[in-house]
Amino acid sequence: MTEYDAVIVGAGIIGLATAYHVKKQQPNDRVVIVERMATAGQGNTAKSAAMFRCFFASNTNLTLVDTTVEFFKHIQNELGRDLKLRWAGYLWLFSKEHYKMVEPILRAMSRNGLSHTVYEGEELVERLNLVSRVSDDQEAQIIGLSDVEKGVFVPKAGSIDIDLLVQFYEREFKNMGGIIQYNTRVEKILVEPKRPLNMPDEPFFWQQSRAAGVTTNRSIIRAKKTIVAAGVWANSLLHQVGLYAPMEPIKRQLFSVKAETEELRKLLHVGGLNPEHCMPFTILPEPTVYIKPALEEEAFWLSYGDSFPREFKLEDDPQPEENFYRYGIYQVVTKYFPQFSGAKPYGAWAGQYALNTIDGQPVILEENGLLTVGSCSGSGNMKADAIGRIAAALYSDEDYADLFGGKRFKVSDLGMLKRKVEREKLII
Amino acid sequence: MTEYDAVIVGAGIIGLATAYHVKKQQPNDRVVIVERMATAGQGNTAKSAAMFRCFFASNTNLTLVDTTVEFFKHIQNELGRDLKLRWAGYLWLFSKEHYKMVEPILRAMSRNGLSHTVYEGEELVERLNLVSRVSDDQEAQIIGLSDVEKGVFVPKAGSIDIDLLVQFYEREFKNMGGIIQYNTRVEKILVEPKRPLNMPDEPFFWQQSRAAGVTTNRSIIRAKKTIVAAGVWANSLLHQVGLYAPMEPIKRQLFSVKAETEELRKLLHVGGLNPEHCMPFTILPEPTVYIKPALEEEAFWLSYGDSFPREFKLEDDPQPEENFYRYGIYQVVTKYFPQFSGAKPYGAWAGQYALNTIDGQPVILEENGLLTVGSCSGSGNMKADAIGRIAAALYSDEDYADLFGGKRFKVSDLGMLKRKVEREKLII
Repeated sequence: MTEYDAVIVGAGIIGLATAYHVKKQQPNDRVVIVERMATAGQGNTAKSAAMFRCFFASNTNLTLVDTTVEFFKHIQNELGRDLKLRWAGYLWLFSKEHYKMVEPILRAMSRNGLSHTVYEGEELVERLNLVSRVSDDQEAQIIGLSDVEKGVFVPKAGSIDIDLLVQFYEREFKNMGGIIQYNTRVEKILVEPKRPLNMPDEPFFWQQSRAAGVTTNRSIIRAKKTIVAAGVWANSLLHQVGLYAPMEPIKRQLFSVKAETEELRKLLHVGGLNPEHCMPFTILPEPTVYIKPALEEEAFWLSYGDSFPREFKLEDDPQPEENFYRYGIYQVVTKYFPQFSGAKPYGAWAGQYALNTIDGQPVILEENGLLTVGSCSGSGNMKADAIGRIAAALYSDEDYADLFGGKRFKVSDLGMLKRKVEREKLII
Repeated sequence: MTEYDAVIVGAGIIGLATAYHVKKQQPNDRVVIVERMATAGQGNTAKSAAMFRCFFASNTNLTLVDTTVEFFKHIQNELGRDLKLRWAGYLWLFSKEHYKMVEPILRAMSRNGLSHTVYEGEELVERLNLVSRVSDDQEAQIIGLSDVEKGVFVPKAGSIDIDLLVQFYEREFKNMGGIIQYNTRVEKILVEPKRPLNMPDEPFFWQQSRAAGVTTNRSIIRAKKTIVAAGVWANSLLHQVGLYAPMEPIKRQLFSVKAETEELRKLLHVGGLNPEHCMPFTILPEPTVYIKPALEEEAFWLSYGDSFPREFKLEDDPQPEENFYRYGIYQVVTKYFPQFSGAKPYGAWAGQYALNTIDGQPVILEENGLLTVGSCSGSGNMKADAIGRIAAALYSDEDYADLFGGKRFKVSDLGMLKRKVEREKLII
């Protein structure tokens, strides 16, 4: 039976980026991805809002995103593979109170060379026909909405066609000789003693054991190293062998609203804010409902990342909830953007975040020949390349990863034993 | 319908100690414990080895244990309630390599006023008929056993009758007017908006919500604060409302071996080491199989806390595995203590640790009116009183808890947001 150098569980964006960089760093290694679906990137990768933002409070997050976005640009501009990058920018609306909290983060961003523009609430009223003063509205009071004091616009941010990114990694991985087995479900991690005695019931607890591949619904795939990049499904495998990634699956819903009225069309194509001449990706004050301009479909995507009492529960096919839009998002959005009055979604879908409940940052670690890469907390797409490089460095037993652009990243910073990350404060 | 001030889920040792201290601090508060079993302390509390040790590398652990053990002494000596404290001490056997690692911990312990004695391997050979040199034995080589270089004896350690401790807290809690509902299974946490609008489908995500009690198989119990102290079962409830305690359930097995031979009786009742004139609780070098002297039944309890690839899996009634003793514990123990040759267990049972995979320390936190107290990682019994006091301080909105003896403990140190603990290095 063939023994691979690496078997990777999951052909989502994280598994693909990891596979690509493993193969790039170790061209002679035999690398196989096992994916239960029929094609790549069809799990939660495909269900995301597919946005990116070089705007985080934590330096770790900023580094992961910024180098990944630079790689996106490299793919599109230098490798000539269109990713449909749209530089809509992020416009984050803040109440007076929250703006005070975010000011030190903005100063740190400027020091790091990441530009941003601060708009006064009144200016946004003019440009976007935004209602900045909601506090005298009785319904808004009940909902608990705050007036918009400022808007922070971050230009290095926008959207990507995630399918095209998936296709880039998949094709390049295959071109280097990488193998992907689709329609194959991994059932368990194969564990073997490092020094087998060929006795029944091995391994005994006094034997050192290692992950030696995976058992799938079709066959056993043996490998020197096993890499679990299965997102929210990772813990179902890891728990079987007493490992874990600190993450909980939580549902996220997106609702698509067509720009059918004159007012909505005007909002979608507002000029003067970004090179795309469109509404930026806009985040409302608490609750941080967000609006994505979806230019390709003349629409907006609306969403909100709710927490307590939203359950943690693994679902293969989570469903959007009509009332989440009707009594949630709609009520909030129309107070600030009356343009949405009467708007009903023409489409809706749901996915799951693999939410790292400890610090909101990714986890990349190795134990007993098993690498875990995940817990991306809803920002896996925009960090994928950096995460893939760090995972590949760990696979190659390197202490540091070289991120795109040359920045070095200490691999153990994203592990658990010597973890060194800051809890992210700018969560949507 | 009655509204309680506090409903506590779980009448294990942590739930009881918490209930006792809540009621002690707030005598007028109406406090109810809900327990699915027929009596108290029948879950994993009852299944533990019921040992305690003032011997930890982490200061947090040392403080929690030391003040709890002082409270045990207070109960027995000053309140006159026998807990069957047995001061057998802990004898931790170390290889040369591991002893070097533990030396700084021993120095720190001495500075904290916790005495210990270091025995040379040769001295233990004489006193215990121990085989210290195993490295020339072929089987021991295969198993990977190390020679015993030193033994560290910690006198402030021993065993307790955990049922008696359970009865103490239960009776005192009831004497203060506390209520316990047995045979009642909590099915979910009740969540309500802080300011209800009396609309269907509340709470909406823009409403602030809080835990308002629990729904059981019998009724709804409303409470101002809800305290989940359900050990390994906690996350089944917490996940339903998007909360969690960082812990995984992992099986632990105990095997009881009668001191039926002359050699075993001699070992059990060895003199000169502790006031009980018995073998200390003894921990072997890696793998750290341990032996507890069970004087009441003229027996030893043997166990080992295995990790990878032992699965994380919640079980209501975990079962001991015959081969875990036969090919695991037995093989290791008999190399150091040939007195056990031929010994078969006359009894065996299994329970589960609520293993905090992050740092091995307890978690005590409050979110939205819901307190979580747990993740005790197998040392909940020996820390119960301190944990109960810290949980009660959190319940009373105090920043500091007064532990027994007057030591103050910052409540937020065991939370998640401002957590301040060291990862424990002395794990059995």
